Amino acid sequence: MQAVLLTGGEIDNMAGLLTMRERQAFSLWATRQVLTMLDDNPIFEALDRDLVQRCPLPLDRSVAIAGPEGELGIRVLAFPVPGKVPLYLEKQAGGDLAGSAEGSIGLEISAGGKTIHYVPGCASLTPGIRTRINRSDLLFFDGTLWNDDEMIAAGTGQKTGRRMGHMSISGPEGSIALLGDLEIGRKIFIHVNNSNPVLLAHSPQRAELNRAGWDIAADGMEIDL
Amino acid sequence: MQAVLLTGGEIDNMAGLLTMRERQAFSLWATRQVLTMLDDNPIFEALDRDLVQRCPLPLDRSVAIAGPEGELGIRVLAFPVPGKVPLYLEKQAGGDLAGSAEGSIGLEISAGGKTIHYVPGCASLTPGIRTRINRSDLLFFDGTLWNDDEMIAAGTGQKTGRRMGHMSISGPEGSIALLGDLEIGRKIFIHVNNSNPVLLAHSPQRAELNRAGWDIAADGMEIDL
Repeated sequence: MQAVLLTGGEIDNMAGLLTMRERQAFSLWATRQVLTMLDDNPIFEALDRDLVQRCPLPLDRSVAIAGPEGELGIRVLAFPVPGKVPLYLEKQAGGDLAGSAEGSIGLEISAGGKTIHYVPGCASLTPGIRTRINRSDLLFFDGTLWNDDEMIAAGTGQKTGRRMGHMSISGPEGSIALLGDLEIGRKIFIHVNNSNPVLLAHSPQRAELNRAGWDIAADGMEIDL
Repeated sequence: MQAVLLTGGEIDNMAGLLTMRERQAFSLWATRQVLTMLDDNPIFEALDRDLVQRCPLPLDRSVAIAGPEGELGIRVLAFPVPGKVPLYLEKQAGGDLAGSAEGSIGLEISAGGKTIHYVPGCASLTPGIRTRINRSDLLFFDGTLWNDDEMIAAGTGQKTGRRMGHMSISGPEGSIALLGDLEIGRKIFIHVNNSNPVLLAHSPQRAELNRAGWDIAADGMEIDL
């Protein structure tokens, strides 16, 4: 492994770093805002800075993260996505739940003439994001919830998807509908919450999703482009 | 669950808290030093202070942590154990690897007329600790390494047990030898490192340990006293 990229400052995004402290050397890329969150938590000094270089990931500008530059290397461009501030900073942030531009990002990853897009959390689909992901060879997209209120309906939570910074898969304002007219080679939902019925292989929701040309990511999945 | 007790400020001790952020209510007990480490890391604000009360665990003084006071409740007394500062704070601490008194603790837990002792990390066996754990009904003790240099010998690390704040199980200065003359109802090694041959059920080291009256803890273990 040569590089780790963080797409946000939620615990889900960052806590895994704490298991990577056995003197592995790698580059750690994140926006300046997320790097500041790491800096503000001394526990992440577990990643020895002599081995793990913390690299600011710019927005809307491509950087080489691994391998030689050019066709054989991997280049990454981070782009802002509507999201919200991490839950554990909400009290501190007060009412400003929309967060700043760098709070959530998507990644455009290019190598060998192919380009994939990775968007694990997206509160709404802006024209800029639509343009960015159109003609992608492979899109990984926020599949947290099927319905905005499914956690409330299931009694497993008190928050809507919108409140958590996630658009839903279904409905007229859902990702299946709003991404349906784009030309995308392959479309895979990620970050699927345990309340989401698409996780059940034989659910009607899974069938609907598959008919719309989408798949669900699975552990150990390998994809050839 | 009513209470969580931290026995130190290492990532092993604290990171599990990050998975307990789903609005569970409990009391979180740790020494003032460890509570300060938590305070210094905003990521632990994931544990909503309205639900998770952070309680300073005094040293050498018993407190009621759960249930009513007296015979039916659970009382805990924390006592200092020689250890070292957490790895991720070593650079900050400079050469002072011995850490302060509160860095590592053992727990004496009493309920229903029985008393157990829980000592997951212990750099050396002081007379005070020997006195404390003598006549325990059940002792859980630091079983990190069999030999002080086994990680170096196996090529899995560059540090001795002493350097990491752990006395070894074997040898004339090991825990089997130094605890052999105490009256303890049951003795179980915990915090066993993956380099330790006692993890192998049929190893000579496991047999030696069992002959000395010790067991190894296992996931899901239940103990009747």
